[in-house]
Amino acid sequence: MTVHLHSPILFFNTLGSHVPAMAIDSGDTVITQTLDAHGFDKNEEQRGTNPNPMTGPFFVRDAEPGDTIAIRINRISLNRSMGWTRQGLAHNVVEPERVAEMPKREKVYWSIDHAARRVMLERPSSHLKNWAVPIAPMIGCFGLAPADGESITTASSGRHGGNMDYRGFGEGVEAMFPVAVLGGLFFLGDVHAAQGDGEIAGTGIETSAEVEFTARLIKGKSIGWPRGETADEIFTIGNARPLEQALQHATGEMLDWLMSDYGHDLVSASHVLSIAVRYDIANVFNPAFSVACRVGKSWLTGGAG
Amino acid sequence: MTVHLHSPILFFNTLGSHVPAMAIDSGDTVITQTLDAHGFDKNEEQRGTNPNPMTGPFFVRDAEPGDTIAIRINRISLNRSMGWTRQGLAHNVVEPERVAEMPKREKVYWSIDHAARRVMLERPSSHLKNWAVPIAPMIGCFGLAPADGESITTASSGRHGGNMDYRGFGEGVEAMFPVAVLGGLFFLGDVHAAQGDGEIAGTGIETSAEVEFTARLIKGKSIGWPRGETADEIFTIGNARPLEQALQHATGEMLDWLMSDYGHDLVSASHVLSIAVRYDIANVFNPAFSVACRVGKSWLTGGAG
Amino acid sequence: MTVHLHSPILFFNTLGSHVPAMAIDSGDTVITQTLDAHGFDKNEEQRGTNPNPMTGPFFVRDAEPGDTIAIRINRISLNRSMGWTRQGLAHNVVEPERVAEMPKREKVYWSIDHAARRVMLERPSSHLKNWAVPIAPMIGCFGLAPADGESITTASSGRHGGNMDYRGFGEGVEAMFPVAVLGGLFFLGDVHAAQGDGEIAGTGIETSAEVEFTARLIKGKSIGWPRGETADEIFTIGNARPLEQALQHATGEMLDWLMSDYGHDLVSASHVLSIAVRYDIANVFNPAFSVACRVGKSWLTGGAG
Amino acid sequence: MTVHLHSPILFFNTLGSHVPAMAIDSGDTVITQTLDAHGFDKNEEQRGTNPNPMTGPFFVRDAEPGDTIAIRINRISLNRSMGWTRQGLAHNVVEPERVAEMPKREKVYWSIDHAARRVMLERPSSHLKNWAVPIAPMIGCFGLAPADGESITTASSGRHGGNMDYRGFGEGVEAMFPVAVLGGLFFLGDVHAAQGDGEIAGTGIETSAEVEFTARLIKGKSIGWPRGETADEIFTIGNARPLEQALQHATGEMLDWLMSDYGHDLVSASHVLSIAVRYDIANVFNPAFSVACRVGKSWLTGGAG
Repeated sequence: MTVHLHSPILFFNTLGSHVPAMAIDSGDTVITQTLDAHGFDKNEEQRGTNPNPMTGPFFVRDAEPGDTIAIRINRISLNRSMGWTRQGLAHNVVEPERVAEMPKREKVYWSIDHAARRVMLERPSSHLKNWAVPIAPMIGCFGLAPADGESITTASSGRHGGNMDYRGFGEGVEAMFPVAVLGGLFFLGDVHAAQGDGEIAGTGIETSAEVEFTARLIKGKSIGWPRGETADEIFTIGNARPLEQALQHATGEMLDWLMSDYGHDLVSASHVLSIAVRYDIANVFNPAFSVACRVGKSWLTGGAG
Repeated sequence: MTVHLHSPILFFNTLGSHVPAMAIDSGDTVITQTLDAHGFDKNEEQRGTNPNPMTGPFFVRDAEPGDTIAIRINRISLNRSMGWTRQGLAHNVVEPERVAEMPKREKVYWSIDHAARRVMLERPSSHLKNWAVPIAPMIGCFGLAPADGESITTASSGRHGGNMDYRGFGEGVEAMFPVAVLGGLFFLGDVHAAQGDGEIAGTGIETSAEVEFTARLIKGKSIGWPRGETADEIFTIGNARPLEQALQHATGEMLDWLMSDYGHDLVSASHVLSIAVRYDIANVFNPAFSVACRVGKSWLTGGAG
Repeated sequence: MTVHLHSPILFFNTLGSHVPAMAIDSGDTVITQTLDAHGFDKNEEQRGTNPNPMTGPFFVRDAEPGDTIAIRINRISLNRSMGWTRQGLAHNVVEPERVAEMPKREKVYWSIDHAARRVMLERPSSHLKNWAVPIAPMIGCFGLAPADGESITTASSGRHGGNMDYRGFGEGVEAMFPVAVLGGLFFLGDVHAAQGDGEIAGTGIETSAEVEFTARLIKGKSIGWPRGETADEIFTIGNARPLEQALQHATGEMLDWLMSDYGHDLVSASHVLSIAVRYDIANVFNPAFSVACRVGKSWLTGGAG
Repeated sequence: MTVHLHSPILFFNTLGSHVPAMAIDSGDTVITQTLDAHGFDKNEEQRGTNPNPMTGPFFVRDAEPGDTIAIRINRISLNRSMGWTRQGLAHNVVEPERVAEMPKREKVYWSIDHAARRVMLERPSSHLKNWAVPIAPMIGCFGLAPADGESITTASSGRHGGNMDYRGFGEGVEAMFPVAVLGGLFFLGDVHAAQGDGEIAGTGIETSAEVEFTARLIKGKSIGWPRGETADEIFTIGNARPLEQALQHATGEMLDWLMSDYGHDLVSASHVLSIAVRYDIANVFNPAFSVACRVGKSWLTGGAG
């Protein structure tokens, strides 16, 4: 149950079998730093390169293919006062006939007010002069080394996690990933101060952060896709194009979870999902889209709804 | 501001230029009855045919192409104690490799307990013996006659509305539809006692209902896709396959709304949506999928978030 | 075996249960005229309206739901010297990031040289000064009234046929459509002088024509999607979005055909298709995309390949 | 202009920056061996592992990011008498409702008759007893190391090439790939004796082969996606899901080619493509689908069509 203070030196643009930055035990907590999506740190110095340079990887002792590593996000502390987004929507989220009218995708800067827990545009148009966004920090890109010897760009995502850009991966969530290589090799980075569904501007409010997480090795538990759990909900993530396929992966993973851990068969699981499921379109911008399949815990036990 | 008591006789399986059941004025309220998706009424007598037989159409005086008709759903009173669903998930929401393991899509019956405001399976497996679903009634299929002389099956949806199967169309919502023919010709039916996102079993809890709505003609206001408004939110609906296209239609319609009614330009609208947008996958089962694009009203005015 | 000379007066913008223009018997031949996609006839007079005004419908005596009507396209004679296209590609066939650079979608005129059997741009850029396109006439939009009481715009397509814009529907092909209403109600129009795969400019070379076809009623034969046959090939058409779904419909229809008419079971049919299938992307522009699934006849009998 | 005889020892399951098997000069020819998709060689001994173990990589001297490497496929000599496929169609190419009726996806064996240049099922059903498939060999998976430090599984494909499974990559074709790393690093394998469009059984007739190719370095020429050229045609390949996106990549790459090498601007290129383009659905089975965009050379010069 050690707490490790980690100061990253190298940053990676792929999730793959890179040399571990640190070895930790199941139950250990790590406090580390992440760069923003373009590689800038808390002092706005560039220490990594585009896209989404990763801190890590963390080697979890005893983790082997077929296990699961759970990462509890204890804390995401934004550690500078500048964030940035792109203006205009991503071109694939508007009808093709409207793309030509979209604004230029310029970089736009935001001020992070840590005391007030809010973010404001640095040069707002008059209409947004007093428009303030509550800080709701999330990890855009994290996960384990993928299977099959692949090294996958941090622009994309898959069964291993990666650049899912899901606003649901905030403080207090325990995320779970399938282990595909010895030690699992956990990477993280690309923190956003806030973001809507779909990451439809192609960005959240991109910034640097200090992140504290606790890793937990679940021996012998095999999962197919990233999962998450909060006090109130369980959720699964599918990463693929098109959205329907991402939804299929997330839904199938939830079926497996309801059957393995909550006593359901396919019939009862389908009853519950047909009434209780909530889908979030996590991102509809990256090379792989991400869909979250959520179920409130109160629906999972016989008594409630 | 008349209140009309309407007893439907004919039911339609397309939204099109059918003979009006009743003419009403803007501001009028109608109390009428809807059949379930297979055409059965409150006495479980079959009076219409599959799919989704429609009550109406209601001719709204003075409505012309280019106008908008807003329908406030005042009340949805389920009026029998039986509802039904299908067991097993729709085959397109699981990975193709898993389809063969899915349970048979048999009809399953539920008991609606009006006093307790909940629904329970009639023959639950032991695991779901005490599993109760709160009643959250919604209109599955409603809208106006479509443009271009089309008559569109009530199995599907489009710019005119139709079978969107969105759980967000419940009591207290004001839905808006573009007028494409004289009088608009409003149809409604296919009430569900409750339903999750995506209508992934291909059904909500299908039942009959008494519905009270108030129609409001908005002269000269032209919209492109169905919209809705609650006390806290505005939302738009895109209906198409694949999901990404439905999302594009919903997003474009929201951009138009933010610009026409809330003082935004494309740049400020993209800032707001990138942070505040929520997408619901309304249905991922019907011939056209439906995606809702929602924005909380507090985000739309400069001061909040 | 009568030959009917038909002069159309009314033109329809939906395929639906419209009043028949003429009743014919199975085996009869009809010679009639079609307007171009914007409604202009051989004299460049506008007699119908956008989109794709249809000649017909032709009521085929004794045709009932569950039957098939085969339409042999005997001859497509372009009957004026002007054709038109749009310049620039449809916005959905290029990457979203490239849409803004696409040229304006202006109407462009072509000269049809009947003697030389070729078409040339009226105002070519220097680079295309001598660029000549061989006439390869095809019917863009044809089919029967759809099922379920629908009236479907001639911009789109479905099980009933409609705006498939497939270059494979040229002279000598026998097209087959499922009968959904009494008499079938056959419509046709939207002839193109030539067109590539996908109709990726959103147009073929649009023009007017005289068309001769022979209708054949196949009693009791039920098909699911449009089919076609030439001297060398059989093919099926799926109409849907996205392309993968259109391909699924076309492939399933071909499986049915191989099993019902060519003695295959699912295993042998899959062997043949896995080696011999050819897919054409007929159109990737209309509200429903169209994919053709083709198999050479030499592959269907045991002896060859 | 050396000819290298290469005997592979190591085989890779990703395209990435692996240690080169051999360094060659532009203009050199290589004769080497490929394993089948499951790793079996000409003696049916397993020397590599699933999926699609690759021969190579070949380091092309002087190749740098921004260049193009062209690989002329001089000869594909199948070197054993056994090939295999799977029976039944891939589950994603039939409608979801039909998946459950599909046959088991068992491995099926074929006899390759080198003298007669044909392949026959080893245990045909009576219906296919004399059914013979002409040998039409193709390379299923080949390409260069990808950009961005990625190592991409040989199950999939991308800008770098990879598992495109396109029947158009046969003898006599010159394929072109963008160079992303020093030396390019060319890999090849997964030869099929024959295959239809779409690889809809998830396999071609999988076998081992001797392959002769000639590499040509095109300094300073930058391309975005794989290309190919035959005596009569040029073509481009887009690799992505869904099919529409693969088509967009292929079409955009063809626009670039027509403009850079054939004197077109976007307007004239769109005229030519709208009339002359042919699309092949190369594979609709792998993690990334592949679409080929083909144009006959006679269409590219002003004079013909």
